Amino acid sequence: MLSQLAKKIRSQDLPKGKALLAVSAGVDSMVLWAVFRELKLPYAIAHFNFQLRGDESNQDQALVRQIAKDYQAEHHLKIESAEDYAEENKLSIQEAAREMRYNWFDELIEAAKADYLITAHHLDDSLETFLINLNRGTGLRGLSGIQNRKGVHRPFLEITKDELLEYASEFKIAYREDSSNAKDAYLRNWFRKHLIPLWKEKNPQLLERMRDTFQHLNESQAIEDHYLQREIDKRLSSKVSSSSFDTKEFQRIEFPEATLRHWLVDLGFTADQIQQLVKSIESTSIGAIYYSGSHKVLIDREQLILERMQENDMVVYTISSFGSISIPGYHLIIEECDLNEVELGNKSVEYFDADKLSFPLEFRNWESGDRMHPLGMSGEKKISDILIDDKVSRFEKEKQYLMCSNSKIAWLLGNRISESFKMDESTKKAIRIKWMSH
Amino acid sequence: MLSQLAKKIRSQDLPKGKALLAVSAGVDSMVLWAVFRELKLPYAIAHFNFQLRGDESNQDQALVRQIAKDYQAEHHLKIESAEDYAEENKLSIQEAAREMRYNWFDELIEAAKADYLITAHHLDDSLETFLINLNRGTGLRGLSGIQNRKGVHRPFLEITKDELLEYASEFKIAYREDSSNAKDAYLRNWFRKHLIPLWKEKNPQLLERMRDTFQHLNESQAIEDHYLQREIDKRLSSKVSSSSFDTKEFQRIEFPEATLRHWLVDLGFTADQIQQLVKSIESTSIGAIYYSGSHKVLIDREQLILERMQENDMVVYTISSFGSISIPGYHLIIEECDLNEVELGNKSVEYFDADKLSFPLEFRNWESGDRMHPLGMSGEKKISDILIDDKVSRFEKEKQYLMCSNSKIAWLLGNRISESFKMDESTKKAIRIKWMSH
Repeated sequence: MLSQLAKKIRSQDLPKGKALLAVSAGVDSMVLWAVFRELKLPYAIAHFNFQLRGDESNQDQALVRQIAKDYQAEHHLKIESAEDYAEENKLSIQEAAREMRYNWFDELIEAAKADYLITAHHLDDSLETFLINLNRGTGLRGLSGIQNRKGVHRPFLEITKDELLEYASEFKIAYREDSSNAKDAYLRNWFRKHLIPLWKEKNPQLLERMRDTFQHLNESQAIEDHYLQREIDKRLSSKVSSSSFDTKEFQRIEFPEATLRHWLVDLGFTADQIQQLVKSIESTSIGAIYYSGSHKVLIDREQLILERMQENDMVVYTISSFGSISIPGYHLIIEECDLNEVELGNKSVEYFDADKLSFPLEFRNWESGDRMHPLGMSGEKKISDILIDDKVSRFEKEKQYLMCSNSKIAWLLGNRISESFKMDESTKKAIRIKWMSH
Repeated sequence: MLSQLAKKIRSQDLPKGKALLAVSAGVDSMVLWAVFRELKLPYAIAHFNFQLRGDESNQDQALVRQIAKDYQAEHHLKIESAEDYAEENKLSIQEAAREMRYNWFDELIEAAKADYLITAHHLDDSLETFLINLNRGTGLRGLSGIQNRKGVHRPFLEITKDELLEYASEFKIAYREDSSNAKDAYLRNWFRKHLIPLWKEKNPQLLERMRDTFQHLNESQAIEDHYLQREIDKRLSSKVSSSSFDTKEFQRIEFPEATLRHWLVDLGFTADQIQQLVKSIESTSIGAIYYSGSHKVLIDREQLILERMQENDMVVYTISSFGSISIPGYHLIIEECDLNEVELGNKSVEYFDADKLSFPLEFRNWESGDRMHPLGMSGEKKISDILIDDKVSRFEKEKQYLMCSNSKIAWLLGNRISESFKMDESTKKAIRIKWMSH
């Protein structure tokens, strides 16, 4: 007779073919593996040893290998340092491990070791993700819980961690305490260990109620997506290299910002850019261009045009009024401020004379031949010389950004501002730019 | 010069005319009142003394009266016991106070003492409401925060309690600690005093992030409402006394349950009923009728018809399969169960022989002439005689409901089942009905 848990999993529509099970050695994935054995479903195992916890990591790997042997299961093991990868690619350990893991899974599936990926994410994970997103001020999608995606199936999404622990204990499933999370995801762990237990004391049914909530919100999300996609499909003209809206047509759209978000956010445009784009359309500011890593949107006389970026496109990010802007490597907040609000000495804030700087401000990579008059120096200097004097590495040099006003260089980002735009005794108002590099 | 808070309120579109300010004497409403004075907006004050905390309640009233005198403000005071009202109307104290308060506000506005109501609900209240609804397994609407409604304006919805306390301290606004909530709303207070402070320690920006979330979710809710309403308007035929869908047309609707919910939930139909209605339409079970307090929906051969209830309608609630049903005064859960699961002695559970009872089950008020064979008695008896023997009051008698199977009375709800439907030695399966009266 099948266990309750196996029955629940069997009642779902699993994809056809062989599953690639991501197994860490923790209880979630070890139980998922056991359920696959119980249901006699075709699978292969993938275990990634990131060498983050020395001997502990090796013991995780040893356990997975042992069980795979016991059950004569097809298994794939990979050992590679997440720390090295993170350093090389300037990522957090968490991002690095994620990227390495999914790259490897993709490779395995491409090499037809399996047909689709399966992970052990469960209802408790969904609640944690919900709370983390709430903590950031998210929208509907961030509150709808973890979901199945194309090529990735998650059969435990409606199952609680307690049910998994129960199964592990009843069927004597070997697993190892998964301590890796403790390092990765401080906030997730805080919710898991402090806030959620407190809440569950008050409401032992919390997870079951969240399951209902996720169902409701998924339906609302599906309605929103359906509606917005239909609005777009009705009005979008698509050609081989570009898509476009008639701007007059666009102004008839009931929810312009939500529609643009639905259209553009997956192409790498930020929420800030989309807000500004809506404003540009409303004020019919012809010529405005917005860039993501892979695409650009421009506002023409009569059209809103989306194009894939060309290799030799010189990308200029433009901001036409106070607000915030994200450019590669930086997030900037640009605001006016009174002189008594100026606080010098903060390295992540630059001040300019508001009468000297004028919108639109343009941000672009420097080019050979670019010159500026650096603050405190007697005259103009080549950007390349400034960077050499400052011993900036070749790699860093390439990523260097400039801020220009009226085609003049006002700021070499993260380095220094120009003498021509600085505040002095005659300054009446300042422009403050807070910046973060990432 | 105006305070920051007053500026924020002035930037909102307040309705034209004179506001009726609901003032409790707590900091929220006393600050709202002060902001109205600061902005020189037209208003009148309404304070309700529910006599729930003896002298404390009287001191609240005295403070409101004193300030009204000091500023020569138009004010309305009402003293009435919420406890008495709750007892008379079988409501919780909280429900009673709410009903009394809003009834009185309505009266005042009708008597043109003011043009619209204004309350001091703020961002912290919205977060508490969000968490309470989450605790219940809510949908999008329950997570969108407190909102302005027709005739009720809430200018503090984006303002935090801390901002109100700051204003009160800066402008020396008199107020009294509002201890009434402590008694009313245990869960709300638990969130306010335990869960939210813990969370805010971790994320001091929590309320600001929630403000963003509420904005996003409100937009999603607006999109959903707009879409569903349009789907309904496209297909609904409305006459004077009824509205109807062609059932074939209805089956073309993309999100049938959400659409029916949008159409019917404000008319008092429950989520359970709406789920069953969708199933009835899918199985084209012609003749099924669903009732709310004020309306009925019936599935005809070709149409889904909504009608307002007639005064002499004999209301029959029907359930066509296992599940739950709400009828006036009762909520029932009907399920099959094995004999080893039968637990006698629980007064809120009745058991029937599954072979004797058959769907659809009908629930209706008893009529003179109705007869049943009560469990343990030798023969049939009139319902009215059973009720007289049991000394049921005239008032209760009128509310008495019957459950019928194949037009035979199987159960006099809350009283006894019929001999003809009981379990005996030959019973193989039981039907269990859990019931709650409300």
